[in-house]
Amino acid sequence: MTHLKSTPPRRLHLNVNILHSGFVPSAWRLAEADPLAFINVSHYVRVAQIAEAAKFDAVFLADNASIADQIDFRPITALEPTILLASIAAATSHIGVIGTASTSYNEPYNIARRFATLDHVSGGRAGWNVVTTADLGSARNFGREAVPDHAERYARASEFTSVVKALWDSWEDGAVIGDKTSGLFVDTDKVHPVSHRGPHFSVQGPLNVPRSPQGHPVLVQAGASGDGRELAARHAEAVFSASQSFDESLAYGRDLKARAAAFGRGPDAVKVLAGLTTVIGSTEAEALRRRDELVDLIPWSYSLTRLAGVLGVSPDRLKLDEQLPDNLSLPGQGNGNHTFFHATLAQSRQHGYTVRELIRALAGGGGHRVIVGTPEQIADDIERWFNAGAADGFNLMPDTLPGGLQDFVDGVVPILRRRGIFRTDYEGATLREHLGLARPENQRLWRKSA
Amino acid sequence: MTHLKSTPPRRLHLNVNILHSGFVPSAWRLAEADPLAFINVSHYVRVAQIAEAAKFDAVFLADNASIADQIDFRPITALEPTILLASIAAATSHIGVIGTASTSYNEPYNIARRFATLDHVSGGRAGWNVVTTADLGSARNFGREAVPDHAERYARASEFTSVVKALWDSWEDGAVIGDKTSGLFVDTDKVHPVSHRGPHFSVQGPLNVPRSPQGHPVLVQAGASGDGRELAARHAEAVFSASQSFDESLAYGRDLKARAAAFGRGPDAVKVLAGLTTVIGSTEAEALRRRDELVDLIPWSYSLTRLAGVLGVSPDRLKLDEQLPDNLSLPGQGNGNHTFFHATLAQSRQHGYTVRELIRALAGGGGHRVIVGTPEQIADDIERWFNAGAADGFNLMPDTLPGGLQDFVDGVVPILRRRGIFRTDYEGATLREHLGLARPENQRLWRKSA
Repeated sequence: MTHLKSTPPRRLHLNVNILHSGFVPSAWRLAEADPLAFINVSHYVRVAQIAEAAKFDAVFLADNASIADQIDFRPITALEPTILLASIAAATSHIGVIGTASTSYNEPYNIARRFATLDHVSGGRAGWNVVTTADLGSARNFGREAVPDHAERYARASEFTSVVKALWDSWEDGAVIGDKTSGLFVDTDKVHPVSHRGPHFSVQGPLNVPRSPQGHPVLVQAGASGDGRELAARHAEAVFSASQSFDESLAYGRDLKARAAAFGRGPDAVKVLAGLTTVIGSTEAEALRRRDELVDLIPWSYSLTRLAGVLGVSPDRLKLDEQLPDNLSLPGQGNGNHTFFHATLAQSRQHGYTVRELIRALAGGGGHRVIVGTPEQIADDIERWFNAGAADGFNLMPDTLPGGLQDFVDGVVPILRRRGIFRTDYEGATLREHLGLARPENQRLWRKSA
Repeated sequence: MTHLKSTPPRRLHLNVNILHSGFVPSAWRLAEADPLAFINVSHYVRVAQIAEAAKFDAVFLADNASIADQIDFRPITALEPTILLASIAAATSHIGVIGTASTSYNEPYNIARRFATLDHVSGGRAGWNVVTTADLGSARNFGREAVPDHAERYARASEFTSVVKALWDSWEDGAVIGDKTSGLFVDTDKVHPVSHRGPHFSVQGPLNVPRSPQGHPVLVQAGASGDGRELAARHAEAVFSASQSFDESLAYGRDLKARAAAFGRGPDAVKVLAGLTTVIGSTEAEALRRRDELVDLIPWSYSLTRLAGVLGVSPDRLKLDEQLPDNLSLPGQGNGNHTFFHATLAQSRQHGYTVRELIRALAGGGGHRVIVGTPEQIADDIERWFNAGAADGFNLMPDTLPGGLQDFVDGVVPILRRRGIFRTDYEGATLREHLGLARPENQRLWRKSA
């Protein structure tokens, strides 16, 4: 007879971030890769099906509203996430579908509607990753000559997200009656305008979509700055962190949960999922070899430019076979590279790396933490972070796709299961259920009863 | 031995407009209907699969950015079309997917990207129906207190559409090289900014999506006004007309093709697809009975309000068992109901209808032409219009869905095939190929060689 437990065990959450051919910029050059995978829906569906077979929580799609990379050397985020996720949802049954959309270059009514629709067509598996979009190229595609400043972007994002949530709540659960006998289709007493008038938006509502299966799609955010953390603390239900170290991630999670508490939200209301690039080999030496082979397939001029961009210096100041220059100045807190800059610098100094060695150590330098090793080593790291509360889960960014994900699923997942920290099957049907998040009450009902 | 023909025969085009449970507002009340069909992706997929099995050209989804109907009595257009069409594309292989999106409440970069993505994920089956959105509810969901006036909406729509086309052409065909040996991913000489600076939009480009399988998605429009016809003549490749009579449709098609010629476009560059609501019975009497039963299931207060709206009068001026008032004043040309108003009035006067009889004759009054009859009668009508060039095809709006479509497919389609005017199988893979439209040259290449 098993013991009854009063609370269910904490569960590890795993997402896969489907960045076309993988996180190492040269992934498209491998023999098994299709260079056109980045615009081939079958590729994304295949990756999602591998993740679903392994019972992952969700697939995640990043996004951008410009060509923000050097396309002569590598694929970009091209296909619009919500449409791609609808395609993925049609070919899967359980896995969550989280897509990125910008609050700076959209309207709240459209975003509320698209993600509510995605929640309906996926049967309650949708999540929206809220971003403010900081690149100049995107600004210039939407009538601006400069990027709106950080505070302005976050003020708009905060109002935007509040309006979207109000629109999602504009239909009460059960508003659709559909009584064939009486002819009553909707109980209009349960459908409400939102009547929002704010500094950035005026939105009358209601939304023209009934409340969706999850109450509303899961809100995801990745803010690292002070403004970003406030936005996450107020609204986010899952956060993708870019923490580079265990201590940093632990501190990040504690800070975020304290900020969330100030908004009256409990410690389980926000899950911290840490970004993690994996390079897997059957021995550590094999994994390191794989990493170096992949990195050496990236044109060095590309890698130099990318690293220089992160460090905020001109590429000609970096010499491949010398160490980093001494006098690098820290990018501002508003810069998404702030954390990465610190970690990169520390790593470089600690090991006395040349620029070439540093680029290899960063697996090309994607901005997230990299683990290179055996399945056992990776499982150890994940277990340590998870058990200590440095993360509730991971947003995996495999070196190559689908290969790097398949290696993770075949090698790491069985170990995590043997250790009892990752599910062997889905226990629920919705993304909220996978993440252990409550279905949100309708704010309007809640206000009525307050 | 058959005679060789120098030109392929003209082909009839058939789309189905999937308006949730069907075009008669009471369709959801039938015994076989699911009242929640309007938010159930399986319903839309099922309708699309019936249409694809019958080798239709496309499914079509209308759209609106507000609750623009009386939801206490009937379903509305709720799910966002491009996401729903991605779901449909995933469950079909040939049928085109045409979705409506507004130029008044979107940004060109986003729309270019969403429809290019839909074209990629569907393998070249996407179409965009360009609308300007005339209702006050939509305006108030996007920060406006009034509907922008007709000329302003169309000026924006025209610039919007030009920018979208330029973005679609910002990558030349063949720009993606993907040469694993040299490491060249994209030939950046084949990717161009659009550098648009206009009264409504400034868009730098290029789009972050390579040119899509069809060159670009098929452009669809439904303009009836002078401004609408100019927009269609300049850009549209298919037009959904709301012509109420044979003569009117013939005149409309001639006018449109003459206007298109002024933009240097040939007579086959724009296909005219007439809206057509069908109510089918095995005898005419049975079809009429079906129509009256359906109409009588609509609450009369709803039908009166709807008719009054079209006629631009207060509902209390209409008495169910009296004829229409004498002194009705015509809505302006900018009003989408202009054509419908004329036809309704003429029909009413000609037959001496009471308001109740008129509402029955209009099958509830959706604004498009209604045929009530046997499959043979409907096939006769379609053949007559098609052979005389009053239409290149039809945008079918069945009374009920999927039932009314299934009746059309089982009853009317075999007759059209026996008469040799409708295909027995798909001859191509893309929506353009179904519609007999050429793959557009890249305007940028064309400009270079000019």
